[in-house]
Formats: sequence, structure tokens, C-alpha cells
Amino acid sequence: MSGTEKFAAVDVIIAKRDGHVLTDEQIDWVIDAYTRGVVAEEQMSALNMAILLNGMNRAEIARWTNAMIASGERMDFSSLRNPTSDKHSTGGVGDKITLPLAPLVAVFDVAVPQLSGRGLGHTGGTLDKLESIPGWQAAMSNEAMLAQLDDVGAVICQAGSGLAPADRKLYALRDVTGTVEAIPLIASSIMSKKIAEGTGALVLDVKVGSGAFMKDIDRARELARTMVDLGTDAGVRTVALLTDMSTPLGLTAGNALEVRESVEVLAGGGPSDVVDLTVALAVEMLAAADRPVGEDEVRAALQDGRAMDRWNAMISAQGGDPHAELPWATHTQEVLAEEDGVLTKLDAYDVGIAAWRLGAGRARREDSVQAGAGVVMHAKPGDTVRKGEPILTLHTDTPERFDRAIEALEGGIEIAAPGTGFTPSDVVLDRISGF
Amino acid sequence: MSGTEKFAAVDVIIAKRDGHVLTDEQIDWVIDAYTRGVVAEEQMSALNMAILLNGMNRAEIARWTNAMIASGERMDFSSLRNPTSDKHSTGGVGDKITLPLAPLVAVFDVAVPQLSGRGLGHTGGTLDKLESIPGWQAAMSNEAMLAQLDDVGAVICQAGSGLAPADRKLYALRDVTGTVEAIPLIASSIMSKKIAEGTGALVLDVKVGSGAFMKDIDRARELARTMVDLGTDAGVRTVALLTDMSTPLGLTAGNALEVRESVEVLAGGGPSDVVDLTVALAVEMLAAADRPVGEDEVRAALQDGRAMDRWNAMISAQGGDPHAELPWATHTQEVLAEEDGVLTKLDAYDVGIAAWRLGAGRARREDSVQAGAGVVMHAKPGDTVRKGEPILTLHTDTPERFDRAIEALEGGIEIAAPGTGFTPSDVVLDRISGF
Repeated sequence: MSGTEKFAAVDVIIAKRDGHVLTDEQIDWVIDAYTRGVVAEEQMSALNMAILLNGMNRAEIARWTNAMIASGERMDFSSLRNPTSDKHSTGGVGDKITLPLAPLVAVFDVAVPQLSGRGLGHTGGTLDKLESIPGWQAAMSNEAMLAQLDDVGAVICQAGSGLAPADRKLYALRDVTGTVEAIPLIASSIMSKKIAEGTGALVLDVKVGSGAFMKDIDRARELARTMVDLGTDAGVRTVALLTDMSTPLGLTAGNALEVRESVEVLAGGGPSDVVDLTVALAVEMLAAADRPVGEDEVRAALQDGRAMDRWNAMISAQGGDPHAELPWATHTQEVLAEEDGVLTKLDAYDVGIAAWRLGAGRARREDSVQAGAGVVMHAKPGDTVRKGEPILTLHTDTPERFDRAIEALEGGIEIAAPGTGFTPSDVVLDRISGF
Repeated sequence: MSGTEKFAAVDVIIAKRDGHVLTDEQIDWVIDAYTRGVVAEEQMSALNMAILLNGMNRAEIARWTNAMIASGERMDFSSLRNPTSDKHSTGGVGDKITLPLAPLVAVFDVAVPQLSGRGLGHTGGTLDKLESIPGWQAAMSNEAMLAQLDDVGAVICQAGSGLAPADRKLYALRDVTGTVEAIPLIASSIMSKKIAEGTGALVLDVKVGSGAFMKDIDRARELARTMVDLGTDAGVRTVALLTDMSTPLGLTAGNALEVRESVEVLAGGGPSDVVDLTVALAVEMLAAADRPVGEDEVRAALQDGRAMDRWNAMISAQGGDPHAELPWATHTQEVLAEEDGVLTKLDAYDVGIAAWRLGAGRARREDSVQAGAGVVMHAKPGDTVRKGEPILTLHTDTPERFDRAIEALEGGIEIAAPGTGFTPSDVVLDRISGF
């Protein structure tokens, strides 16, 4: 460390370790010095663990977020003819909502800049899903993105490396040091990128349940509140929905499988939970952008082809062929109901792991994914099932993976006696608004 | 990480982060994998912080210690003609006790293998002190050490790099990541080296007070208990004394200055606190080695020249000239009493920092130290002082350092009205025995 540094990293670590509030100057310095490589990875790792165990208050989290924003560039959507509204999901199994949602919102003259990532672990990535469409390109320049936002109204693309570079470095570190699960760090990671991106409005879909990052609703509510506060303090009209992730969304988990289901929704069909959540989030995004539209009117845009037109334009603009045949996996295997009855559990996490093991997800950042792999569900909790009929169909190009996928499902499927009353969870569990 | 590893580092970190007890297998693996470089520095750093904040139980600490011992070689003193007894001090200001103690114990046919380190920060290092003796060499082979233990009965030398290499790597990491102050990590660091060294008996001098690592007696007692348990469980007869470090030991802090004071003690003189602690520790070391000797008899060996004979032999055996003139610093400056009265405070930490800044210690591992630099005290708490008379003399070869040394002493010296009653702290505050 050079003698001109304002602080010593070890003193900042010790302050948080001993339960003190970090000063603005300490936070600004530690993020900047970490980006410059002056604070070493092992020092930031110790600080992260101290933050995870001892927490940060609202002012510290806001400052930490701002310091991460300041580590990179900021985008500017003020030249667009329409207001912008973005959505972020904390990640779930079968969560393809972004695909129908972005073109649907664009129908109502609100621009949707969806800077997305790839999947890691049991939840799929939006870019991985779209890359199963022949020709579609995730990477694009800022200029091309702005042009598409004006022309088509929606973009789903890869986030550039210029936004909050400190976050990228920090995220990779947290991933290997057991410090992912800290609410201050999760909230600042998500919000630094969204604020730097420059969206005017933001709707957060905070997932709760076995397949989500947050397993319990109190922690999820705390995360949602923290993020809404961060957005609001930064002048972004922010609202969060807490939504159920105890069972997968829709009837598919996997890349091409989920694109197909999204296109069904855009064609006016599709599973009701996916349609309902897409509409609920669209209503929120439009209201947050100060262009309120009623639920019925939003739903109509799925029925009458306007949302599909936007989808086709959006996919085409990024080199994709929206009418091309999507890939199928070469092998399938069914998982059958072992008895007659009512399906009371189809665990989101277990299905996510199964889809991941079948090849839909990656274990390491550098791995590739199988476009056709994943899980198709034939029943959801509350449905009646009959012994010997399929509950799931597993898809993969590498059939040697079936056994480990089936292992993952052990205990994840429960069937109660026929006639047992069972009410599936509501999709939307709570709402937290910053405006 | 290779697919053949037994665990993933992140799972071990998360277990401790979430307050679980680590299994024996997890502990063995994490220390071994860290030594092999499979567990990265940033992962060990996060684990250390989780251990610091969430603790480890007695079984975990014992296993952690054993895993560190297993990372390197073990020494074997069983071929020696006499039993072995070692001493370890947690470090204090003016703590030169090892110098008179090792030859004193050797007088009574108990061999003293003192594998020591260098100083870092405000406490001096035993090797730094001895290196002020012309010709004296800290490094020696295991064979030479064993021979000297049989011939002379005492060795003070540099610890070889083969003992508990995991600890050396871990200590360097803890130093820069704010994780030094974890009792499980301190205890296992000290005890892994002492157990690997193979001593049959061990006396721990756990310092308490401003100049010590442990500022409060409860934490010091916890550390002492933890170390005594570790030694006992490993078959080493272990006892700990908790001793006062609110004010420096003796009247000198510095390298050659402390050697001179040690030689005074070996000549039957010297400050009473140094003599008393040397004798108390010698009595404990002899009892722990199962060769009990009474206090009076131990004291006699300082008076009649037997301890001095051993000292001369010990220094000569390692190339030193025990009769050579020791270096003096080129510059001195006095610190005067500002009023008449009773000295009620001469703060160990502040004196230690002053000596360090004068050149007696090092800021970085690669720095060298000044043999002559340091602080000579003319009064100790409880003594009467007179305005204008010197309380301290500062010694350095680099007089530009006087100002910062004097700065360090601000608030460290307090004088009460003449006649104020003041009872200095006892040197030995408590005793914890494992046998």
C-alpha cells in the first residue's frame, strides 16, 4: 500500500468487525482502492464477512452503492422519446417473465432497457434462454441499444462491462467466499447496476421460497425494503413485489423450453401463473413510469398480437429469427406419479437443480449450456395426478445425466390422498413501494 | 478446485458463518488444502473472520491445532539426557525474560529449547535483542540445536520453517485482514508450534494490560485456558501465568538495552520485577518438567554465577562474544518530570510505541532494527519523581525520530500530588494449570 492512501484496509475491516458504522470516507476509499487493486482480495473478503455478520445501516448501504456506481460509467436515457422502466428479478426456477414482459410494456410507449446476465447455479439466465433462438445476439453497443429502445421500445441484452465494475469484481469474490447472502451486499450489487444504467423507474421481483435466494419472507421483505430505499434515495421510482418461488413458474425450466412457453404467453395462451405475473409486473412498470395502464388493457395486448409484434421486432433487431424452429434435446425421460392423489409439492429448488444437472445451467462461468435441456412439468401443486402418468419430462442431450437429475428430485414431489384439499400459494405475496 | 477434493471451501466457510461446529474432516481438509494452495487466501480470510465472530469450541480448536501441526515436521527431544521445558510469552514491552530465564533453568538440568521470533509492532523480538551481541547467530540446524541442548542446556534460536508451515501462511494473512484478535486462532497458532517442537513441558506467560495483546483479564484468562487445554490434550504439561503488562517490564525497552539489563539480572542485580518474574517462571518450568526446585534455590543460581556461566556458554555456542561491548545509540534525549509527585502511570503501550519509533522495532517484516535504540526508564509507577529530573532517556541513531517518539508518550505518563498513596500492580495476576 502506498503511503499516500487515506486509510489502511485493516483498520476499515477492524471497524466493521468490531460493530462500528463505517464512515462515508472509509466506504468511498475501500471501494475505490479495491477497484484499483490496493485493497487485496483477501482483505475485501474479510470485510464482506464482517458486513454479513455485523450488518450495515441504511446510510452505509447507500454510500456503498454510490461508491460502486462511481467506480464505472453511467448511462443516460434522457435522449429517448419515451420514459424508461426496468424490471429486476432476484432469480427463480422457470422465471422467463422478462421475455414476454419487455415487449408487452413497450406496447404502451414505455421503453424497457433490460441489461441481463447469464445463469449460474440452479436458476436460469435470461441471456441463456434467448440464445437458444437461432441468430440472436446478446452483446450490443450503447448506441445500438439506444436506437432499438427508440425503434422497438424494448431491448434485452448483455450488461456492458463499464457499469459498476467494482460490483463485478466483488461479486466474483463473494461467490467463492461464502459472502453472497448478505442483504447489504445483495441490495447494493443489484441497485448499483440499475442506478448506473439510468432507468427512470424500476420494478423489483423479489422471489421467496425454496427455489429463491431468499427462503423466508421476512428476509425477502428486508431485502426488498433495502432495495426500494436505495432506488428511491437515488431518484429512481422503485417498487418491489414479493412473489412465490416455492414451485417453478409455469410448466417449463430450461432455455429453449422457456422461450417456447414465453411465445405461448405472447400468443395469448400459456400457463396462468406466468400470464398473471407478467401482467402484474407490466402494470407496476407502467405505473412506475408514470404512464398508468389498467390490468385489462395490458392483458388485451397479449390477446390481440401487439405484444407479439414487439417481440418479433425485438428478436429480429438483435439478429434472431423469431420464426425459426427452436432446438429440442435429443433424449427425454418421464418421471411418473407413484400414486393417485393431489400434487401438494413440486419443489422449485429441486426442479431447478434437476434442470441444471440435465444441462440447462452451468457449474462454472466458462461452461456452456444445452439449449434444449430442462424439465417440462405436466402438473402443478393442487392438480390431481394419477399413478403411472407422467408428472415431469426430463430433456437432455446427455442421457447419462438422467440419474443425477432424478436424484435431485428425491423428496421434491409429494402427493396427498385423492380429495385432499390444497390451495396453491398466491403468486404475488406482498408489495413495497417507494413512491 | 480439482474434482477429487473432499469439500468445497465455500461450504466450510458457510458452515462457520452460520454458526455451526466444523467437523474434524472439514478442519483437516481446510488446513491441508490451504497449505496446498487449493483453498485460496480470500477464502481462508473469510473463514478466519467467521471464526473470529462466531467462535470455535474446544474440540474444534484442538483439531485445528492438530491439523496445523500435521502440515509440517515434528521435532523430537527424546534423545536428550534431560527433560525439556519451554516458555512462551504472548509479548510485552521490555519483556526480556527469556534471556535470563533460559540459562537459569538450564542450571537445574532441564533443557530449554527456545524457538523464537522477531518483533513486529510495539513489542520487541527476542532474536532482535540477542542479535545486538556481536557475532551471535539466530539460525541453526536441528542437529546443532540438539547438541547445544545436551552440552549447554539452553538454546534460543530462530524457529525453523518446517514447523507448522500452515501457521506461518495463516499468520501473514491474519495480519492484513483484521483477524489477528481471534482467541481460537491465537491459541492454535502458538500451540501448534510449541507442540510440533516436541517440548515435554510448557509455561505460558500471558500478558495483560495496555502493552499486551490482551487488554483485559477476562479475555487473557480465556486465551490462557484455551492454550493450557490444547497443551494438556496433546500430552504437554502446560501451565499459564497471567502477568501484568500495564507498564513495561524492568527499566529498559530496546535491543542492546535489554540485553544489558538481562546480564545485570544474571549477575545477581537488575530490577526487581524482572528478577521476580524470571524466578517465578523458572520455578514453573522446573515443576512442569517434574524437577521441582524451590524459589530460594532458583534465586541463588542468579546470585552465585551459575546462571551467568550458562548464559556465557549459550551465547558463545552460537558465535556470540558474551564479553563484547554492546552497541549504544548515537543520540539521546531526556523526558523530564513536569512536576513533583508520585508517578502513577507509565504506560506500557506508549513506551513500546516510542521505542519502536526510535528504531528498536520494525514496521514491515523486511525492515532492520537499530541495536542501540530504545527507552531507558528512571522511574516506575509508585516511585517519587521531582520536577525537571529525567523520567526517561530516549536512545536512537536517527535523532529526527525523537519528536514522533515523544508524541507517542503523550498521555502515557501521569504524576499525582506528592504523598499520594499508590500500589503498583502485582507482576503475577493469576495462574492456570493443566496438570
